Amino acid sequence: MEIGGVDHLAEERSKAEFDVDAMKIVWAGSQHAFDLADRMSKLVSTDPVFGKDNRTMLDRKDLFKTTLRKAAYAFKRINELNLTYEEATKLRFFMDESNYMGLHWAMFVPAIKGQGTEEQKEKWLPLAEKMQIIGCYAQTELGHGSNIQGLETTAAFDSNTDEFVIHSPTLTSSKWWPGGLGKVSTHAVVYARLLTEGQDHGVHGFIVQLRSLEDHMPLQGITVGDIGTKFGNGAYNTMDNGVLRFDHVRIPRNQMLMRVLQVSREGKCTYSDVPRQLIYGTMVYVRQTIVTAASTALSRAVTIATRYSCVRRQFGSQNGGPETQVIDYKTQQNRLFPLLASAYAFRFVAEWLEWLYNDVTDKLKANDFSTLQEAHACTAGLKSLTTSATADAIEECRKLCGGHGYLCSSGLPELFAVYVPACTYEGDNMVLLLQVARFLMKTVSQLGSGIQPVGTTAYMGRSGHLMKCCCTVERAEDWLEPSLILEAFEARAIKMAASCAQNLAIFSSPDEGFAEMSADLAEVAVAHCQLIVVSKFIDKLKQEVPGKGVKQQLKFLCNIYALSLLHKHQGEFLATSSITAEQALLATAQLRNLYSQVRPNAVALVDSFNYTDHYLGSILGRYDGNVYPKLYEAAWKDPLNDSVVPNGYVEYIKPLLEGKLHLSRL
Amino acid sequence: MEIGGVDHLAEERSKAEFDVDAMKIVWAGSQHAFDLADRMSKLVSTDPVFGKDNRTMLDRKDLFKTTLRKAAYAFKRINELNLTYEEATKLRFFMDESNYMGLHWAMFVPAIKGQGTEEQKEKWLPLAEKMQIIGCYAQTELGHGSNIQGLETTAAFDSNTDEFVIHSPTLTSSKWWPGGLGKVSTHAVVYARLLTEGQDHGVHGFIVQLRSLEDHMPLQGITVGDIGTKFGNGAYNTMDNGVLRFDHVRIPRNQMLMRVLQVSREGKCTYSDVPRQLIYGTMVYVRQTIVTAASTALSRAVTIATRYSCVRRQFGSQNGGPETQVIDYKTQQNRLFPLLASAYAFRFVAEWLEWLYNDVTDKLKANDFSTLQEAHACTAGLKSLTTSATADAIEECRKLCGGHGYLCSSGLPELFAVYVPACTYEGDNMVLLLQVARFLMKTVSQLGSGIQPVGTTAYMGRSGHLMKCCCTVERAEDWLEPSLILEAFEARAIKMAASCAQNLAIFSSPDEGFAEMSADLAEVAVAHCQLIVVSKFIDKLKQEVPGKGVKQQLKFLCNIYALSLLHKHQGEFLATSSITAEQALLATAQLRNLYSQVRPNAVALVDSFNYTDHYLGSILGRYDGNVYPKLYEAAWKDPLNDSVVPNGYVEYIKPLLEGKLHLSRL
Repeated sequence: MEIGGVDHLAEERSKAEFDVDAMKIVWAGSQHAFDLADRMSKLVSTDPVFGKDNRTMLDRKDLFKTTLRKAAYAFKRINELNLTYEEATKLRFFMDESNYMGLHWAMFVPAIKGQGTEEQKEKWLPLAEKMQIIGCYAQTELGHGSNIQGLETTAAFDSNTDEFVIHSPTLTSSKWWPGGLGKVSTHAVVYARLLTEGQDHGVHGFIVQLRSLEDHMPLQGITVGDIGTKFGNGAYNTMDNGVLRFDHVRIPRNQMLMRVLQVSREGKCTYSDVPRQLIYGTMVYVRQTIVTAASTALSRAVTIATRYSCVRRQFGSQNGGPETQVIDYKTQQNRLFPLLASAYAFRFVAEWLEWLYNDVTDKLKANDFSTLQEAHACTAGLKSLTTSATADAIEECRKLCGGHGYLCSSGLPELFAVYVPACTYEGDNMVLLLQVARFLMKTVSQLGSGIQPVGTTAYMGRSGHLMKCCCTVERAEDWLEPSLILEAFEARAIKMAASCAQNLAIFSSPDEGFAEMSADLAEVAVAHCQLIVVSKFIDKLKQEVPGKGVKQQLKFLCNIYALSLLHKHQGEFLATSSITAEQALLATAQLRNLYSQVRPNAVALVDSFNYTDHYLGSILGRYDGNVYPKLYEAAWKDPLNDSVVPNGYVEYIKPLLEGKLHLSRL
Repeated sequence: MEIGGVDHLAEERSKAEFDVDAMKIVWAGSQHAFDLADRMSKLVSTDPVFGKDNRTMLDRKDLFKTTLRKAAYAFKRINELNLTYEEATKLRFFMDESNYMGLHWAMFVPAIKGQGTEEQKEKWLPLAEKMQIIGCYAQTELGHGSNIQGLETTAAFDSNTDEFVIHSPTLTSSKWWPGGLGKVSTHAVVYARLLTEGQDHGVHGFIVQLRSLEDHMPLQGITVGDIGTKFGNGAYNTMDNGVLRFDHVRIPRNQMLMRVLQVSREGKCTYSDVPRQLIYGTMVYVRQTIVTAASTALSRAVTIATRYSCVRRQFGSQNGGPETQVIDYKTQQNRLFPLLASAYAFRFVAEWLEWLYNDVTDKLKANDFSTLQEAHACTAGLKSLTTSATADAIEECRKLCGGHGYLCSSGLPELFAVYVPACTYEGDNMVLLLQVARFLMKTVSQLGSGIQPVGTTAYMGRSGHLMKCCCTVERAEDWLEPSLILEAFEARAIKMAASCAQNLAIFSSPDEGFAEMSADLAEVAVAHCQLIVVSKFIDKLKQEVPGKGVKQQLKFLCNIYALSLLHKHQGEFLATSSITAEQALLATAQLRNLYSQVRPNAVALVDSFNYTDHYLGSILGRYDGNVYPKLYEAAWKDPLNDSVVPNGYVEYIKPLLEGKLHLSRL
């Protein structure tokens, strides 16, 4: 809030029925996590260099240059303040501007750590960690995204010189999309087909220098550039997603990342005893961070829509009094509150995924791969579910703000445009759902074989009971009982899975069956993943949750999350006879009742995310609710308002008005 | 296609099982409409001035200036070629760049025509038609969009001087959003509260001059500017949506639009005998054009996604052969084909709405208001339904293009950003659904009272039968029968409406009941509107449709449209017992079968829209399918590629790499 400012949302805040400070800790995950985020977000928001108010008004070059400045400045401040790794990561996060640093730290460095030998790590990591080299992750190609095994770039071993020759044999083999590649990175981990001894050994990673460390010019044989403007005004246009072509570029043999597969001086391949399953551990890790990011993006959008829905009034004035706050309309609540509940739901499932990742890592260390497949399927599915839902939800929040949501100063267009790639990167959401479905079909087919389904599929072990159980809900309030909700979701999921498995059995070729049934299989995967989110929310509420009224609020949200899904997917619950039509009606009635519980707490529930106005980047979502004067003020800062009479008036408007256009050369 | 170019989609085109040229006429609506669109789109696409390839790369000022140029040039060409009104409108349409001309012709001129007296029309229309003045439509305010009756701008009559004093009494009364207002318009129709004889006579229109015709400077008492950057790169940023404040601006009495209400020299108000219902006729007209625009926007997105889904291959390579075309995946078909079907469905319902508008107009002329309410509700509902569906569908098409859909050069980000306001303007989609619901509840309450429901609600007159009828589908093929589909949709709609009406009756206050039940009521309205679209598609197929195979293709699409809705809203069909769970399964099975019918015709079905590559504005959707070389070429045109080493290297990258950032002042 501005110094001396009035809090236009003070009355809303006074209505809260729970301890907001305690909820902030719950949202952050721990006191430590809260303190860290709070400190770093304030460090960023109070430093004018990190300002982003004009971001949507800059042209691409100016935009990119200001981002380079912020990234360098951030690194400088991190060193000056001697920040820890954890603090530095958070500071960059709250900077809230995609740039090459993200890929360097989150993809390039981990690739070397995970796939490099001890020797390679010793050589490259200190350079990377001091940023004496800047790296990116060059995997995706113009013609290949989802199908990694189809990548075309080649790395042919030349035993005469003890080098690999990196080459782009076709146009579609051009590397395309890697962030930080276009204009900044000096190095890349390049994924290419290893060719040696006349054989194709599949795709592996190679460290390739791209640009001179003297003058930043591309090295011989390297063509590199930016792939062009992307969705949104600022959004990902602060990032130099790049194109890269190799014309027989030679690198020493020791720049292939050889932790798993070694190529000898003679060009012979040998696998080390490092388990190849390690790659799945990394995927679990990366996708878990994506689920956390989904809850963050969603909570930002919900904060903006909730606060502005309290500020905005429309219709319903009685005797000249104020109009009704938009948030008091049931249709607004019916669209907004399930999204608020989803933000919390995704937060808790992300928290659980963190635990899962640690569990998998411990097991991998002990050569225990028993839960790996299940963990992999579960994170793939949750990545898909949460990112799809979040992308849709951000746009829904924008619509919930009426016309003003369309202004960049609302923050929502930027948030949407910068978020949506999450549905595609790190596994296209549809491709991931089918991976989950494949795993579920396998699990179902093994039921009764003595192999017990583990983890999030454990409920399938109770298929005998679930297939024939009847939901016992009789009154709307019965739907507040977690065990009844859980059983309904389990019954729906297992029945849909079982029915698909049955249909698959009809096909003579399993692959053909899977292809034909894939639309149904995707629905099975979604039903399973929704069950996971619901069950992890319920599990969270079995734990102790300190703070006055906090647990009660979370219970409301958990029920809203589950019952809104049940309403949305009513057809599947009914078609599988998991519930009756009457019970579906009761669920909807209960859902709508719950909105009244959330209404007085709505602003406090988004305050609990503890976002600074800088991070939100939205006039509609301002903490103090002082929306209209600030919208009005912001308008005049648009470049188009630099002059009262616009550029082009003399050439294109004046002659039109004077009827002299026919004399103009346009 | 480029001269001498190869058609990479030729094989797809050769598979078509229908007469594409005949389908083009069906899509356009008539031979005349086709010829007109074909000529005008080619006129635009072959003229380099109308080029828009760099639109997403320009900064706001340059973007705006190029738009001013195109608008002036279009007007010049229209005069040079002596184009008819119809031709001129189409030419501006295919220019495909939002600008002040649109509002001038579609809102300012019609406002004067519709609300002005003969005298006023005589004075202002010739000026406007020659564009010696440029006008906009200043209705929406910073604090009031949906609730027009709540507008705050005042027009107080001063009988001493025979003038109105136009004034903005509050910040929230600032006009906000009108297109063309910010930088270009010289005049506006301003909506303000008429104050005379100490009374508030509600909101009326006034012609107000804003800028000097000499030097384009705002007149005294007028503050005017642009409201700032909006969603998307180019999109609506070519338009100067404006803010406008009045400080006691005086206009002569005869600049109030007085067709309906006259203010005398003494300040007395008198209503003319012009029926006030005329306003509804205008709303029917405007919303009908919005439904047409929805089918256009949707068909553009579907064209891009369909063509690129044929070009793109991923996975499934056998023995080193080519990978599978993405369009052959059932999940892709399951997402894409219902959208293709929706494009056609929306086209035909728009065609029918044109008829409805003419019918209403004829009746109004004969003082027959019997169908006006129904026609108004029906267009409001269809505006809401088709724009919401189209906005979602464009984004879905973008996702169906994988990562490349995120590039501006795919055309889809622009299409989305420029389209989404349609969900908000001319009636927020949720507000409109509730209007429809209110009308439906009234209709239901009158059943049995002797008042027969008319038009699209006629089916409610058969509620006795529909409430108890049972769907007779026994095999999947039965779902191809239009009458069975129709009855299922009718049963669902009437049962949902009846159940809501019953619940409403429980409340002592109807308004309270309506507010409490509004989420359910919105669902009732959607069910009703979906029925309308389905039934108009079916009606279309009862007519003669010339051309080999054309009708057969439309039948497939009609069934896909209906059955995909049935699948999506399965819950409502089941909960109302309009169909059984077994029948729902059969519907889904039939739906998925139909995809195989559409698959070979997919490219031909989008070719039938007859869009030029200029109009599509998408490399992914190019007619010739030559996607990858053109994507690669386009990348290098991004401003960021003007230099190999980016601006900012010296200041922000070099010192970082050299470990000298601590010496830099950033």
